[in-house]
Formats: sequence, C-alpha cells, structure tokens
Amino acid sequence: MNHSAEKFRAEIIDIDVGKSIILLHENDARRMSIHMGDRVLVHKKGCAYKKGCKCGEVALVDISDTMVSEGEVGLFNDLAAEMKVYPRSEVYISPWGKPESVNYIRKLIDGDELTKSEIETIITDMVEDRLSDIEMAAYVTASAIHGFTKSETVALTWAMVNTGEKLDFDGITVDKHCVGGVPGNRTTMLIVPILASLGIKIPKTSSRAITSPAGTADTMEVLAPVHYSAKDVKRFVDKANGCLVWGGALNLAPADDRIIKIEYPLSIDAEGQVLASIISKKKSVGSDYVLIDIPYGHGSKISNEERAHDLGKKFVWLGGEVGMKVKYLLTDGTKPIGRGIGPVLEARDALMALSGDGPQDLVEKSIMMAGELLEFSKERRKGEGVRDAKKCLEEGSALEKMRQIIKLQGGNPNITPYDLKPGKFSKQIKAEIGGKVASIDNSLISKIARAAGAPKDPTAGLYIDKHVGEKVGAGEPLFTVYAQNAGKLEDAIEISRKQSPFRVI
Amino acid sequence: MNHSAEKFRAEIIDIDVGKSIILLHENDARRMSIHMGDRVLVHKKGCAYKKGCKCGEVALVDISDTMVSEGEVGLFNDLAAEMKVYPRSEVYISPWGKPESVNYIRKLIDGDELTKSEIETIITDMVEDRLSDIEMAAYVTASAIHGFTKSETVALTWAMVNTGEKLDFDGITVDKHCVGGVPGNRTTMLIVPILASLGIKIPKTSSRAITSPAGTADTMEVLAPVHYSAKDVKRFVDKANGCLVWGGALNLAPADDRIIKIEYPLSIDAEGQVLASIISKKKSVGSDYVLIDIPYGHGSKISNEERAHDLGKKFVWLGGEVGMKVKYLLTDGTKPIGRGIGPVLEARDALMALSGDGPQDLVEKSIMMAGELLEFSKERRKGEGVRDAKKCLEEGSALEKMRQIIKLQGGNPNITPYDLKPGKFSKQIKAEIGGKVASIDNSLISKIARAAGAPKDPTAGLYIDKHVGEKVGAGEPLFTVYAQNAGKLEDAIEISRKQSPFRVI
Repeated sequence: MNHSAEKFRAEIIDIDVGKSIILLHENDARRMSIHMGDRVLVHKKGCAYKKGCKCGEVALVDISDTMVSEGEVGLFNDLAAEMKVYPRSEVYISPWGKPESVNYIRKLIDGDELTKSEIETIITDMVEDRLSDIEMAAYVTASAIHGFTKSETVALTWAMVNTGEKLDFDGITVDKHCVGGVPGNRTTMLIVPILASLGIKIPKTSSRAITSPAGTADTMEVLAPVHYSAKDVKRFVDKANGCLVWGGALNLAPADDRIIKIEYPLSIDAEGQVLASIISKKKSVGSDYVLIDIPYGHGSKISNEERAHDLGKKFVWLGGEVGMKVKYLLTDGTKPIGRGIGPVLEARDALMALSGDGPQDLVEKSIMMAGELLEFSKERRKGEGVRDAKKCLEEGSALEKMRQIIKLQGGNPNITPYDLKPGKFSKQIKAEIGGKVASIDNSLISKIARAAGAPKDPTAGLYIDKHVGEKVGAGEPLFTVYAQNAGKLEDAIEISRKQSPFRVI
Repeated sequence: MNHSAEKFRAEIIDIDVGKSIILLHENDARRMSIHMGDRVLVHKKGCAYKKGCKCGEVALVDISDTMVSEGEVGLFNDLAAEMKVYPRSEVYISPWGKPESVNYIRKLIDGDELTKSEIETIITDMVEDRLSDIEMAAYVTASAIHGFTKSETVALTWAMVNTGEKLDFDGITVDKHCVGGVPGNRTTMLIVPILASLGIKIPKTSSRAITSPAGTADTMEVLAPVHYSAKDVKRFVDKANGCLVWGGALNLAPADDRIIKIEYPLSIDAEGQVLASIISKKKSVGSDYVLIDIPYGHGSKISNEERAHDLGKKFVWLGGEVGMKVKYLLTDGTKPIGRGIGPVLEARDALMALSGDGPQDLVEKSIMMAGELLEFSKERRKGEGVRDAKKCLEEGSALEKMRQIIKLQGGNPNITPYDLKPGKFSKQIKAEIGGKVASIDNSLISKIARAAGAPKDPTAGLYIDKHVGEKVGAGEPLFTVYAQNAGKLEDAIEISRKQSPFRVI
C-alpha cells in the first residue's frame, strides 16, 4: 500500500553520513505522522504507487525546521548517490515499518528469552546498518541488564560468526586471548613467532588500546603495518604460519564493532556479549584450539580466583558449543609484565626477549603459554611443549620467524632493539627510602603512561627500573617516564607525585 | 591540563544539527585516542593551553574518513556560529570528560537507586542537550527495565518541573488528563469551556495523536491555531479563564519531549516516567486540582479495574508529593466515545455537543467530569457540580466561552458544525445481519481511521452510525468511512473487510 506516498523536491546535502538518513521539515513530518527515528521508503519519480517496485531505499528520518523547507526532503550524499537522485528532482516518501529486530529488542527489554532466529535477525540488521543508534543502545543496555541465557549466548556467537568473513586453514590452527588489565603483558609478540616457527598456524588478530597505554596492535605497529584484510591474513599465514595484525579492518564478526561503538560511551562491558565477541572472533579466523589468559588478583580486572575460574569455564563451554577446544590459564594480574610500558617500549622488550635478552617475567610467561598451546593442541606431548618453546626461543628461530612476519607485513626485518628509541623527554623517579619493591599498581602505571602520551605518541610511556621483589636504594631510580614533549612529561610526573605506583618496604 | 590539545584547521559544514557535534578524521581520532561519542573541548586559536579560559565549547565527536581530511575538524553551522569560527581558521581540540550524568545513567543500568541531586543532574543535562542519543537511549531503556523508586519518581517530577517554564494563576486552577486509548474521547473540548465559563481557570495543554486518529490538539486545530507559547497561554487564561493549545511548543517540563523522542522509536512507555511526565506538566501550568480520566476494560490500554485503580492511586500520590490535589475516575474504555473519529469529525461532535445536539455519551461524560472537577476543587458543593455543568452547557454559556477561546486563539468564532465537512470520498459499511451492536473494537476503529488518513488529513476518519447497544437492520449502515482520496478510502475499507470492528448479535 503506497497510497500514503507524498511527493517531495530533493535537496542533496553534501555530507556522507554512512547511514541512510533523510531530513524532513517538521511540518511535513507532522502532517504525515512521521517522527524522528521513523523509517520511510524513498522512491524516485515514476515508481511511486507501483506495488513491489524495487527502486526504493529505506531511510531513517531526522527532522529539522532550518535545513530543509516544507515540501523538500534532504538526502545525504551516500543515499543520493546510491539512488542516483539529482538536486531538485522529485522523490516520493512514504512511511515504512520498523525492521523486525526492533520488536526483538523490545522483547529483550521486557526480559523475555530470544530465539535463535530472533537473535540472527538482530545481528543481521546490525551488520546491515539497519538499526539506529537509539535502537542499538537499547539492545546494549537491555542485554547488559538482563544478561543472556546460555542458548542466547550460543545463538549470538554463531550469528556474529555467520554475518562476517571467515578464514580457514589446513592443519591445526591455534589462537590465544588475554582478558586484559595488565600493562606490558605482550606475550603475543613472543607466542606467535614461537608457534609459527614450530609449524603451527596462528592467524593472530589483536586490538588497539582503548583505556590502556598500548594494545598488541599498537605495539606491533612499531615494527610493521598492522592494517590488513582477511585476504592478507590468509596470505601471511599460508606463507609464515603466523601474523600479528589489527583485528579492526578484517570484517570478522563485524557485529562486534557495531556493538563496541555503542558500549564504549556507556562504559558497558556485558559478560555474555564479551564472551560471544571473543569466541566469535576466534571461530571466524578458523581456530581449533584457543588458550585464554586470565590475569587475576588485586589491581587487575578480576579480583579473585573464584571469579576468574568462573569466567574461564564459560569460555571453555562457549568455545565447545561452536566446535573449538578452549583452555584457560589463571595468571598473576597484580603487577605489570616486562619493564617497558607504551608501544615503543613494549616492542623493545619483545624484540629483546626474542633476541635472548628480554625481561624474565615476559619470557617465562610467553614460554609457559606457548608450551601449553603446543601440548593442549596435541602437537607436543606433556612436558615437551615448554621445552620446545624455550628451545626455539633460545636458538633464535622465533626471532627469525618474527623477522619474516615483520617483512611480510611491510616492516623492516632488520630492526634491532637499539633502533627503538623512547621519547626524548624523560625523567627518572627515584625511591625516597631504600628497601624492596613490594608492589606496583597497574592502574596508576597505565594512567602515568597515558598521561605521558601513550598510545597516541608511540614513544611515550615508562620503563620500570626496579620490578616487584627487587631491592632499591634510597635515591635510586624506580622508573623512568618518557614523553614526546615537556608538557606531557610534566603531566605524567604530576600524577606519580600525587600517588606513587610503587610501594617500597 | 591542556597539554593534549592539538591544532586543527576548521571546515564549516553547512548544516544545523541542533547539537554540538564535530567531525574528526579517523586517523586523527585514533592518534588522539578519541572515539565516536567522546567529548572534546573545542578552542579558538590563541586560547589553547590557557587553563580555565572560557572560550571553549564542549562537543560530541563523530568520526569520518571522507568528510574531513587529516588535520581538519568539521564544525557544523550551529557550533561554528556560536564560537565565531571562520572557515580554515585554526582551532584546538582536546579530550574532555563525560558529563557527570553519564555516571548516574551507569548507576541506573546497574540497578542502583539515584539520589535527588543525581536525577536533577541527568534532567538538567538532557534539557541542556548535553547527552547523546546513545546515552539518552540507555537512560530510557534502563529506567524502563528497573523502574523508579517512589523517591526517584518524586525527584524526577520536580526536576522536570524545575528545568522548564512555569505558569502561575491567581485563584483556583484546575486541569484534567486522560490516559488515552479510547477513540473519540474529546471531553476536553467540552470541559474547558464549561469550567472557564463558570469562572474557573483551566490552562489546558494537549498532545497531538501519536498512534491514535486524533489528539485533542489535532481536533482543536480544526477550529483555531494551537501552536502557542507559555506567554500566550497566560494571556488567554487571564482573559478567558481557559484555552486549548498544543503542549509541545510551551517549554513546560521540556525534558519530557527529549525523553519521548527516544521512547517513541523503542515503543517504551515506562510507568514511572509517564507518571512524572504527566504530573510535571500539570504542576508546570500551575494546577491546584487535577482530574485523571482512566478508561479501562477490554479493548482499552488498561484491561482490568485493579490495574486502573493502582495507576490512579499513583497519580494521586505523586500529585500530592508536588503539592497538587489529584482525583481519578475509572471510566468505560471498552468502546469509542461520540460518533465522529478523526480531527474534523471529532471537532464537529464537540461543537454539536456545545450547541446542545451532540452524541449523548460524550455529553454525559463531559458533564460528569466537569461536575467532579467543580466539586473536587470545592467550587461547588456535593451534588451541585454536575447540575451547574449541565446548566451552563444547556444555557449556551459553554458554547459562548468556546467561541471566545476560538477567537482568542485566532480561529473563526462563528464556525458551525455544518462548516465542518468530512472527506469528500466516503463509503458506508453496512450490517450483514440485523440485530444489536454488541461491541465496537477501539483499536480496529483507530486503524481504519488512520488508514483513511487521520490525523494527517484532518477530514479523514469515520462516523459511527450505530453505536453499542443500538439496533441495526440487515443492510443498514454501521459506520461511514471518509477520506481525502480514493486510494486511502480503499485502504481503510480493506482493513474493515478483513476484520469488522463491529460485532452485531
């Protein structure tokens, strides 16, 4: 029924909004009983009133009393180009229903369980950009409040996988993930080359920092570009068994990006959604075995062992539901890993570790995890995983593999730790009393490194001169802050002055 | 600390967006660790780095990789004009925190009770347009799910009143409200002139139809303009004791409009929010006594008496909390009121009723409610309210008052029911069998009238030839559909063909 279509004069608004949005004058909207956020069908001249014509596009309505006059409809660049509508030509507008998924979001708000097909519809509409920010925010808020049932979580995971690209590799494919919260925890930079050098496929996609001083993608970017497509990942892994790329450009489980964009301004991090997001990304790259690193303890994201086990078990369960073997490890989340904090300083730690001279805690954790992955994926017998991981690091084959990956990703394969220079403005923060470093506060360390400019300035951050358990004399440096400019150095020092991240006893 | 301010070249985007939004290139945003929906402080050249300077404006960030180049910031018209920024001039951008109310919205999501001052902060930020659609949608969704406690509801009501304009009249001021759901229920069109003619102040603001075929504002608009300011309302009421205007242009409890804009696309209608919205509007116009009409029963919004009483008691309680006396009436919500459905047809019913010849049910309900208001507000003794309301209707003083109001609001005071002509395309729907009309379905009646074009076409709608309880012979008309064009008439008839709103037994 298109009897309610009305004729308008098109005004093209020279902006790409990335979504199909039209502007109506408020008087026209009122007359047509159309409200902000409603959808309309936009037809070109000559096809209105024809039932079932396919030239129309569905668009969301925004209302203005200044940008368009009565009788005019404002079409943004993207929609005008797609529909081939020219300025001042005639278009027909008629009310259009909401996508079915809006009803399912309503169900979610009401606390009703969604069926598999309802969840698929929601995720498909998200990926196809059919939902407005308001509808997306209602989804995110309602799912954070009510949580998802087990069967909803499984359906959500599959829906996220199936609406994106998928990779598949011959032979055993492994992956790892860390739930985060520990500065400097760049084990991925060692685990990928170790496993790849042992012939195991590890198509690693990583994230950038959101609230931390560096993500693995930011750190790898110091050594090579990380902005690649799924096709590139396929090529890298087919050639070198592994890669280290940014996950954001791959279109793997793309619903996740849409959801995160809405979760972020609301500081929402709903468990069911997080589980589905992580497991769907791992499934999409074709993983068979996934190791999850769950740092816990005072100062980390997960404060106690029980909650850490609880989360780990959920990963194992959900992975199993979509045909992957998942294992989790509880690790020490109470202090930073390694000594460098910030992209360049962390890349330097990693490169030094691959060269046989890195921070002991980073090396040991990486070997332990690589060994676990080897044994868990049945590629090595019990006890032989750690041994072989260690060996390949010591013999330099991991470093050689990393150089191959750096080269494939377009970086300089001959880079050395000495080429990686931290920010030119620096200041040592010294111990006021002598003693032993009893603790280092993760969140203060992150705050200082970020104030210094990390990850925006890759060379900014800090270096831990004395780690937990080490002795320090009064007046000896505890840590050194690096920045690209004097102002930010001062900002970072100001924070540590107010509250030191180091406790010396 | 403004050490993180960066210099950009301003591009002015010739669009009014009504909110402070800027566009950054995605590479700049990433480098600065700024995400979509984050806020930034926009400074003009020469004032960055100066702590505490007041020339900056806080704006929400949108991210694009096509509309602005790296190093450019897109400023929309409104912000550029407000800041007096010229094309290609230098501006400084630095990250800015979220408004405090975003934390309180988080609290709401977590199910924690908000304090009075937290609610005031949220409502103030809403009215000042400091919240994004995403944050607004999270507020609306979370409050729909968790509901509000009693003290939250009271705080919300006061906050809504205090962030808008307020009217105050000498002497007793009364008001009425109907929770809706019954087509044709235009008692306001009679109650206002009755009470005003008896010297009682009734500054009536009404809404337009959202999902119904006509709101009181749409119906009154047939007789006179309804788009007026609070100052106009003051003038009308000072002169004529009453008015009938659209509530949307008054800036009374304006937070409500913001909230409704977000609730509407989500079909959310949360009880605590509805209570606070209605009571705050009544408080804002300076009401002392408010009568609430709660139609209930099969086919109405509220299906049973218990729920209707429950809602009524909440209105009484909340009104009392903000210093108003509220009374509620349970009325028959099972069938339409009057005979005309649609703005012109309902205005005709009302005008006929004022002239002594209207539909009996509409007249009786209006007299009963006007009488209740007179007695409840102590303006008449028990038993004398209905008597005097009836008298003033019969003697024509209510009609005279209505003509005065129509004239004051800029309409033609000499209009007669015969001037109000329904749509030129019409069709009678006839009874297939003879008998008695047992029921008329409210939602089908609304659907048919809307399909015919109401409220968009004011002359569209339908006329009930035989009401519930009346006898009808086979082949006699049950109702007549009116439309402005043949297509819509056909659409409306098609609906009644599929399922008749009339049950004849």
